[in-house]
Amino acid sequence: MKLKDDERIDDLLANQTMKIIQSPSVFAFSIDAVLLADFASAPRTRGNILDLCSGNGVIPLLLSQRSNVPITGVELQERLYDMACRSIDLNQLNGQLKMIHGDLKDMPDHFKNNKFDLVTVNPPYFQTSNKDHHNHNEYLTIARHEIYCTLEDVIQSCSKLVKSGGKVAMVHRPSRLVDIITLFRQYKIEPKRIRYVYPKQGKEANILLIEGIRDGNPDLHMLPPLYAFDENGDYTKDLEGILYGRT
Amino acid sequence: MKLKDDERIDDLLANQTMKIIQSPSVFAFSIDAVLLADFASAPRTRGNILDLCSGNGVIPLLLSQRSNVPITGVELQERLYDMACRSIDLNQLNGQLKMIHGDLKDMPDHFKNNKFDLVTVNPPYFQTSNKDHHNHNEYLTIARHEIYCTLEDVIQSCSKLVKSGGKVAMVHRPSRLVDIITLFRQYKIEPKRIRYVYPKQGKEANILLIEGIRDGNPDLHMLPPLYAFDENGDYTKDLEGILYGRT
Repeated sequence: MKLKDDERIDDLLANQTMKIIQSPSVFAFSIDAVLLADFASAPRTRGNILDLCSGNGVIPLLLSQRSNVPITGVELQERLYDMACRSIDLNQLNGQLKMIHGDLKDMPDHFKNNKFDLVTVNPPYFQTSNKDHHNHNEYLTIARHEIYCTLEDVIQSCSKLVKSGGKVAMVHRPSRLVDIITLFRQYKIEPKRIRYVYPKQGKEANILLIEGIRDGNPDLHMLPPLYAFDENGDYTKDLEGILYGRT
Repeated sequence: MKLKDDERIDDLLANQTMKIIQSPSVFAFSIDAVLLADFASAPRTRGNILDLCSGNGVIPLLLSQRSNVPITGVELQERLYDMACRSIDLNQLNGQLKMIHGDLKDMPDHFKNNKFDLVTVNPPYFQTSNKDHHNHNEYLTIARHEIYCTLEDVIQSCSKLVKSGGKVAMVHRPSRLVDIITLFRQYKIEPKRIRYVYPKQGKEANILLIEGIRDGNPDLHMLPPLYAFDENGDYTKDLEGILYGRT
C-alpha cells in the first residue's frame, strides 16, 4: 500500500482489525461519522447502501462490519476519494465496497432507477459564507462548509436515491434540526428516529442523529440520549460500546 | 369557597401554600402542565402572559409564583373555566390572574392588537377520530382529543396572539415533533429551545417541551434531557426540584 505525503495507517477503531488511511494535513474521520454508522438501520444481508459525502470512506468501512450488502461511497474531492479507495484495498473489501468520485447532485442521474435501501450522509455542517471562517485546510473547508452543496441539495439527493420505504440517516448539528425536519418532509422523507448526543450531563446536545423513511407515516421516536463523557471526563460506557465494540 | 359535586381543594404542589380546585370525575391537572409552567420563559415584571387550553387554571396559577405580570387564561369548557375562576379567588390572585370562557380560535379577534409577550399552551394531544378511543369523561375527551381544535388551530392562534419577538411555549408528545416544528415555522414561530422528558434512563422520551420566538432567527438549543424517575422508581432530583421547589 502506497502512502502519500503525511498519510498514515490508523486503526479504524480500537480493538478492531480494520485499518484506515488518514492524514493530519488532509483529512481524518470524526466521531460524528462513527456515531452515524452505529445509529443507521443498516440492512444485514439483503439490499444495498449508499453513503454520500464519504470523505476517506469511514462510514462504508464501519458499516461493512455489520452488513454484508454492497455499499457504495460517493466523494467529491479526488484526494479523499483516493484515500478511501486505498483503504478499501487495504482491508480487502473490494468485493463489497465501492467508491465513486463525483458530486452527490449528479448521483440521481448516475443511478437512474437503481435506488437504495439505506442512504447515509455526514454532510457539511456550516453555512458560513464568510471566507475568514473557513478552515485553512481546503479539504476540510469543503468537507465542513456548504460550498459545493447545501443542506437542501443533500436532502433532495437522498430523497431521489432512496427506495420508497427505504431509510435516510444523517448526522448534523442540533441547531439545524428545524431546517432538517422541514426539508425531510418537503422531500417526502418522514423522520422516524432521532437521537441526541450530549457532551456530558447538564450540557446542551452537540450532535443530532436522525433517520427517516421515504414515504413513511408520521411516527417519530425520540431515543434515549447518548452522553459522550462522564463526570470524570472519561468516555461513558455507551460511547465506549460504540467505539470499541459492545461486550 | 363553594365546591360542586365531588370537587376537592388540592395543594397546587407539595410544600406550596397555593391551592387548586380539582375533581376526580371532571378534571385534574397533569404533570405536563407543571413541566410547561417550569419550562416557559416567563417575563418577571413587565409584559403579559396568555395561557390557552387552561383547563382548571393550573398554568396561570403556577406562573404567578415566578412572575408579577398580568396572566390571562382561556378555557372553552364552562365547567373547567368555572373551577379555574374559583381557584383564582381561593388564592386571592384576582389582581393578577383572569380567566376568559371562550374558544382559542376566537381570541385573535377578541384581543385585536393586544398581543402577548408569552403564550403558553398544553393542547389536546390526540388525533383519534375513532370515538371508541375517546375518554368516557367528556371533559377529558375534549381536553385531550383534537375535537374542538386541531394542532394547526392552536399554533395559528398562538402566532396571531404573540408579539413579534414574543415567545410561544407548548407541551406535547414527542411523536408530534415534526408536525409542531413544521407548523411553528409555517406560522413564523421559530423554534429556539426544546427539552425532552424521559420516564427514566434507557427509555424513549414521552413528553416534549418546545418554545419558539415569533419572527425569531433560526438557532435551536437542545436542552439537557429531564428524567422523571431514577432506577429505584423515585422522582429524580430534577423533577423534585420542579414539583417541590428548588432548594
